[in-house]
Amino acid sequence: MTKKLTEQKSEEGVTPAMERQDGKLEEEKVFKDPVHRYIHVRDELIWELIGTKEFQRLRRIRQLGTTFLTFHGAEHTRFNHSLGVYEVMRRMVENLEKKGAWDEEERLVCLASALLHDVGHGPFSHSFEKVFHMDHEKWTREIILGDTEINQVLRQMSPDVPEKVADVIAKTYDNKLLVSLISSQIDADRMDYLLRDAFYTGVSYGQFDMERILRVMRPEEDQAVFKHSGMHAVEDYIMSRYQMYWQVYFHPVTRSAEVILSKILHRARELLAENYPFKITPIHFKSMFNGEVTLKDYLKLDESIILYYFQAWEEEDDPILSDLCQRFMNRRLFKYVECNPSKQMLIWPELQQLFKKIGLNPDYYLVIDSSSDLPYDFYRPGEKDERLPIHLLMPDGRLRELSRESDVVEAISGKKRTDHKLYFPEDFLSDQTTFAKEKQKILSLLTNQEG
Amino acid sequence: MTKKLTEQKSEEGVTPAMERQDGKLEEEKVFKDPVHRYIHVRDELIWELIGTKEFQRLRRIRQLGTTFLTFHGAEHTRFNHSLGVYEVMRRMVENLEKKGAWDEEERLVCLASALLHDVGHGPFSHSFEKVFHMDHEKWTREIILGDTEINQVLRQMSPDVPEKVADVIAKTYDNKLLVSLISSQIDADRMDYLLRDAFYTGVSYGQFDMERILRVMRPEEDQAVFKHSGMHAVEDYIMSRYQMYWQVYFHPVTRSAEVILSKILHRARELLAENYPFKITPIHFKSMFNGEVTLKDYLKLDESIILYYFQAWEEEDDPILSDLCQRFMNRRLFKYVECNPSKQMLIWPELQQLFKKIGLNPDYYLVIDSSSDLPYDFYRPGEKDERLPIHLLMPDGRLRELSRESDVVEAISGKKRTDHKLYFPEDFLSDQTTFAKEKQKILSLLTNQEG
Amino acid sequence: MTKKLTEQKSEEGVTPAMERQDGKLEEEKVFKDPVHRYIHVRDELIWELIGTKEFQRLRRIRQLGTTFLTFHGAEHTRFNHSLGVYEVMRRMVENLEKKGAWDEEERLVCLASALLHDVGHGPFSHSFEKVFHMDHEKWTREIILGDTEINQVLRQMSPDVPEKVADVIAKTYDNKLLVSLISSQIDADRMDYLLRDAFYTGVSYGQFDMERILRVMRPEEDQAVFKHSGMHAVEDYIMSRYQMYWQVYFHPVTRSAEVILSKILHRARELLAENYPFKITPIHFKSMFNGEVTLKDYLKLDESIILYYFQAWEEEDDPILSDLCQRFMNRRLFKYVECNPSKQMLIWPELQQLFKKIGLNPDYYLVIDSSSDLPYDFYRPGEKDERLPIHLLMPDGRLRELSRESDVVEAISGKKRTDHKLYFPEDFLSDQTTFAKEKQKILSLLTNQEG
Amino acid sequence: MTKKLTEQKSEEGVTPAMERQDGKLEEEKVFKDPVHRYIHVRDELIWELIGTKEFQRLRRIRQLGTTFLTFHGAEHTRFNHSLGVYEVMRRMVENLEKKGAWDEEERLVCLASALLHDVGHGPFSHSFEKVFHMDHEKWTREIILGDTEINQVLRQMSPDVPEKVADVIAKTYDNKLLVSLISSQIDADRMDYLLRDAFYTGVSYGQFDMERILRVMRPEEDQAVFKHSGMHAVEDYIMSRYQMYWQVYFHPVTRSAEVILSKILHRARELLAENYPFKITPIHFKSMFNGEVTLKDYLKLDESIILYYFQAWEEEDDPILSDLCQRFMNRRLFKYVECNPSKQMLIWPELQQLFKKIGLNPDYYLVIDSSSDLPYDFYRPGEKDERLPIHLLMPDGRLRELSRESDVVEAISGKKRTDHKLYFPEDFLSDQTTFAKEKQKILSLLTNQEG
Repeated sequence: MTKKLTEQKSEEGVTPAMERQDGKLEEEKVFKDPVHRYIHVRDELIWELIGTKEFQRLRRIRQLGTTFLTFHGAEHTRFNHSLGVYEVMRRMVENLEKKGAWDEEERLVCLASALLHDVGHGPFSHSFEKVFHMDHEKWTREIILGDTEINQVLRQMSPDVPEKVADVIAKTYDNKLLVSLISSQIDADRMDYLLRDAFYTGVSYGQFDMERILRVMRPEEDQAVFKHSGMHAVEDYIMSRYQMYWQVYFHPVTRSAEVILSKILHRARELLAENYPFKITPIHFKSMFNGEVTLKDYLKLDESIILYYFQAWEEEDDPILSDLCQRFMNRRLFKYVECNPSKQMLIWPELQQLFKKIGLNPDYYLVIDSSSDLPYDFYRPGEKDERLPIHLLMPDGRLRELSRESDVVEAISGKKRTDHKLYFPEDFLSDQTTFAKEKQKILSLLTNQEG
Repeated sequence: MTKKLTEQKSEEGVTPAMERQDGKLEEEKVFKDPVHRYIHVRDELIWELIGTKEFQRLRRIRQLGTTFLTFHGAEHTRFNHSLGVYEVMRRMVENLEKKGAWDEEERLVCLASALLHDVGHGPFSHSFEKVFHMDHEKWTREIILGDTEINQVLRQMSPDVPEKVADVIAKTYDNKLLVSLISSQIDADRMDYLLRDAFYTGVSYGQFDMERILRVMRPEEDQAVFKHSGMHAVEDYIMSRYQMYWQVYFHPVTRSAEVILSKILHRARELLAENYPFKITPIHFKSMFNGEVTLKDYLKLDESIILYYFQAWEEEDDPILSDLCQRFMNRRLFKYVECNPSKQMLIWPELQQLFKKIGLNPDYYLVIDSSSDLPYDFYRPGEKDERLPIHLLMPDGRLRELSRESDVVEAISGKKRTDHKLYFPEDFLSDQTTFAKEKQKILSLLTNQEG
Repeated sequence: MTKKLTEQKSEEGVTPAMERQDGKLEEEKVFKDPVHRYIHVRDELIWELIGTKEFQRLRRIRQLGTTFLTFHGAEHTRFNHSLGVYEVMRRMVENLEKKGAWDEEERLVCLASALLHDVGHGPFSHSFEKVFHMDHEKWTREIILGDTEINQVLRQMSPDVPEKVADVIAKTYDNKLLVSLISSQIDADRMDYLLRDAFYTGVSYGQFDMERILRVMRPEEDQAVFKHSGMHAVEDYIMSRYQMYWQVYFHPVTRSAEVILSKILHRARELLAENYPFKITPIHFKSMFNGEVTLKDYLKLDESIILYYFQAWEEEDDPILSDLCQRFMNRRLFKYVECNPSKQMLIWPELQQLFKKIGLNPDYYLVIDSSSDLPYDFYRPGEKDERLPIHLLMPDGRLRELSRESDVVEAISGKKRTDHKLYFPEDFLSDQTTFAKEKQKILSLLTNQEG
Repeated sequence: MTKKLTEQKSEEGVTPAMERQDGKLEEEKVFKDPVHRYIHVRDELIWELIGTKEFQRLRRIRQLGTTFLTFHGAEHTRFNHSLGVYEVMRRMVENLEKKGAWDEEERLVCLASALLHDVGHGPFSHSFEKVFHMDHEKWTREIILGDTEINQVLRQMSPDVPEKVADVIAKTYDNKLLVSLISSQIDADRMDYLLRDAFYTGVSYGQFDMERILRVMRPEEDQAVFKHSGMHAVEDYIMSRYQMYWQVYFHPVTRSAEVILSKILHRARELLAENYPFKITPIHFKSMFNGEVTLKDYLKLDESIILYYFQAWEEEDDPILSDLCQRFMNRRLFKYVECNPSKQMLIWPELQQLFKKIGLNPDYYLVIDSSSDLPYDFYRPGEKDERLPIHLLMPDGRLRELSRESDVVEAISGKKRTDHKLYFPEDFLSDQTTFAKEKQKILSLLTNQEG
């Protein structure tokens, strides 16, 4: 009987792993994946980690937060991405193994870290972290070290494995090569998300030749380097990253939705602080607002919980909360103008006054959002946020930093780009049945500060 | 100012449509779509329909229900699919227009019907409809004709447009050609979902050459036919459909999740009927259970609401509800064996007895699920569920039914295939610390009935 | 110095292989391939075989003969395909090695056989073989065993290796499993050509999931079998094969070009026999016509030689040779009608008379071409051309023939389909300035026999 | 009858166009194309041009010359590319037509120019033009204006059409917008070849979103400009171009084959001048060498003619001609080192002396090849080779030059990159059975000059 049952369909097969002495599954498990075609699981440890409820929870958290409101294809979750990072890492390790010995435990620590690197993310992390000063990295650590199924599975292997995995993810692990495979300027995480996010949004910018990059990777003591003959694939990757940041991740419409989301959270916190009588008590939020979230509380947070409240709040009496929630749920987003911070300071007081006059609280309806990105950086010793540069392995055996060889990378290297936008509810302003003069004035101020 | 604001980014741009006399947008709107690359909106009507809250709600309902638990890529929503069907229809109409005049209103009715054909779907419709005897087609009609933003937008065009659109979707509209473009054995709906579901699951079966099919379509009085020279593209479509049904839509693991979902709903209904004291009152479910769902209630239902309750119910005292919800949320699904209905009847009473003996309620833990599909059918006049066959337009001008020309279609034509599976919680049975003998007996009965 | 030179660009890098004791190249060589992305060469033997002049000659022979006149994309050569078959085999062997030991020599024999299986093909083999009773399989054997660079390279390994490779290709080798990987109903050769020909023609029919097929292959004593869970990928492969035969390989326009090509060869042979005074002596053809082609002669034949003569012959005085060559070079092909052999016999004498009357030699201008294909066959012991069927490995360990499990394969299994077409120069017939009555009569006969 | 015959298979269908009053084909003709999926021909003029023998000749001339010796997939021809340019132009015109009226004749002139822009290319144009001072642009003009089928077809439309088409291709036509669609920094020619060459070589660099670029094109008086919202697609195109030049078009191995090809031509010219007694008289070459090529001669040149001679010359007694031809045919290319022109001048005399000493003629065996590319340039009035820059159409209606908006384009804009390589026969040098000392010295000089 058992035999038959284990022979069931392969995709995310429901069968518990057969026990084997060597930690390998009886039969390799295969997940169909639209980005990497197949995700292969041979190790029992990985199979069991995927089955834990903390990992399954990632199915209810979108990979790209509010991006689906701009690119409707981008509905994929962190579960999806985490499997992908694991698979990229599995292939990396397979290639690197051929070049030199890897300890079996080190290999599993590496794969587990890839799989679990995002496990601490909550719903719409970006906004939540800013509003509630949460830190998904801290939660990742707690989930790996705390009283969880994940911890249990890891400990079965050896009691110090959870600590090791947590250290790799925190970049404090002593095998720097291993750390660099997950966190560096070219790592399994980024390679998966660029390809995956490009696939699901449908943009063509994110394409690069990952297979080639993996084949030209060579292990060095504290990071992987890339054979010079593969430079163009690496160049292409850097350019993809650059394009994806500005075309997708920082898309102004996505940021409009994020602005609204943040303001909803602010408003709810304020109302809770004021003991506002919510129609449905936001129990899931209370601990967040008072900063006493337990691990158990945290693990309950997912996007369905958030959307449940937002839907409920559409009918709250508080006009700000209700309006913002309706905006988010029905995609009635804020408009934006480019914003020059220095010019904008001059008109800010007047704008705020005008907003108040027409009955709009400027704290919620007049919002500047700034995004900035540094697509690639060479080594700047001593600087804050210093990054390990990408090195090429030259034919003569020397290493050379990428931007010294590549014109296009050199062109964007070290150049931080920042973008400021001013968001506001244009629908309210264009309805000029009331306060026509003030609204006209606001619109004209917004336009002028832009030019 | 206005000009500037409307020139913002195109993807699902936030700008309200400029009013024009001819119902066309000032500037075509473009959605990036991973399946059709771009979705083009030129008509103000379509743009406004997409912006309604009833349509936006489809973002919170997955296209493939529980399939994401089998194929992790399949996280796409009905919003995504609905835009796709609209786009396929837009291209169809563009091609057909070249072949003969279309009335402008008819064209818009056609596009709107394509966009809205699924608007009445609720969360996990398949299971909900079975348990609560709901009917998404009825809801589609109500949403189009009732007090909704969609109705308002449609009525702006002309007061009888809502009725027309509802009739097209209900297949009662008198322009049969138009109806056939949305509902027939080869229509915009199916072409989009096969391509889209294949794309998101990552399987290769769903591929076919839609562009070719659209180009060989020719309008006839009550349906579209296909030039003989494009037969192979049509053949390929039929084969794709066949493969997708058995490889994806009826995947046994997906059905395991559906079985559990149905049983959760059954259990909740039973508990409500018994006035079981829920920790969190399932207000959203009450009206469903008593069959008095209003349109307003219905529109609040989406998958985040359902998952909110399922998470809450994991902590209910009722062991069945709590267990089933944990299974669904953490993907601890039922196992299955093939099931021969006639043989199975013989052992059913004994199995049920044994389940009761070991403390498992067989109504919830021993479930047969049957799926059947008829991939293509030629015309069988007078039969129930009669279907319009696909016709080829031969070089000499005659029409010929597809299966008479195509060997492969002939081979599967009219052949209904049915599959029965018996689902049960193997984890409970394989834990033989208690009732070892009974559990062994159950497993042996399940195995034997299969062979 | 040497080091530097060997570090040059990888694609078909010009560097001779470094000698190593283990027969491995210092650095893996990589060919960029649009179908399999990369072709990997690690073995010195393979690298050297690719560099032989007999193998390089395959660059001047198109994979699909006259198909480029129907599908302009299909300009790829046998060199291209041969590398592909090698790569598919390399992946097969890599997968099979994991399942059990392979002798190193056996592995290399296998890879070399895959690479060289088509090395005996000449230009437009199909037509040449029919007209000159040549046999590319015989030439393959001679090239491998004769005085060639290929033979030299193979013999370096061991003196009996050439014989072994020739036996594998001739299917007489005693390791039947190995033979089946190259020649069976699902082998490396077919998998590559279906994918490759689909890629270059641009048709979508040839797609199937090769990666999946390779993963579910399992070695049995005398053939590879496929795990049942991969059945649908195998089904898809069979359907692809079926579609490619009728949509591409037997495309009637391609066959029109082949008909003309054959008639050119016939005419040239006839003229040579008659000592017709060619303006340029067709030295390359002479030995062919008298059946005394040496290996050295044969290796000089490639498509540029053939096209050189065809261009020259456009200006010969013989009106038939000149006309046919102009048709081939300038793509002025024959038209065709469907042809029912039994009906056609009745009108044949009259048609021939009419052709003669209007001055067209029916031996050259009235040609029937028949194509037939048996897409898949189960085992028919004792029958001529018996084929090894495809077997599935069932969950319980039994083997089961594919068509017993798959409805679609069953539908086309064992069903030979034959197609007859009658080709003729319609341009001559439609120009009715002379012999209007006869030409009209011919056209009418052709039409009537068709119906 | 006629009806039936015209209903034959579509791909490059053999049917002559039905005559219609409006110049449209009865039924659109469709070519399957792997890059653009389908190429659509509706105009009789285009259909007939494709059928001319001068256009069909392009089937025998590879698009990328010797590149197939580096990337085996790149066996596609200029026929293939020319159809592609036509199709890109057809789509451009379709889009631009929506924006404003186009005269029907202007439209056809535009399409014909796109189709015919490369019709004057000969075999391996790059090398031939350098050695024989030929000019494919001059030949294009002669083919269009001279006694050819192409001229006849064009003149049927109107007597001045050939002149117009020739002017468009020569960039002297007065409709500058139309000229810019075929020849500018972003035109139909380049868009097709980047996509096509990337497709056939299998590299990923050449991908960009052509559909998007076509949609954001807007006609201005003397060139097409691009809406700012599509800037990133244009950026991507520029980057693709940049990568393709250095990764594919200037690949050092391709250049090695080109060097050998040029030297073969030089040698043959020299021998002809000396009245060397060729075994087979190279009639096709004679007129080239004495500079008196007629149009009729020129049209006979294709790659099969060239390869015919190269094969024959492998057996000539002249050791240089024979060696070089064997190298080309069997892909035994020259090796290369990077070459610094200033350093190299110092060692040149010594190298030449050493080559002579070991019996290698340095004129043939010691060759410097320089390639340079300017990926994009803004406007530099008055400079030689001034190029029309790419302009973006900003939201406010102004035009802005691309590199002012795009960081990455700015980074490579106006920067010409030149690369020098020194080619030589390493195989001769590494065989040190004779002249060991001199050969060692040569290798050491080559290495040192590089560093």
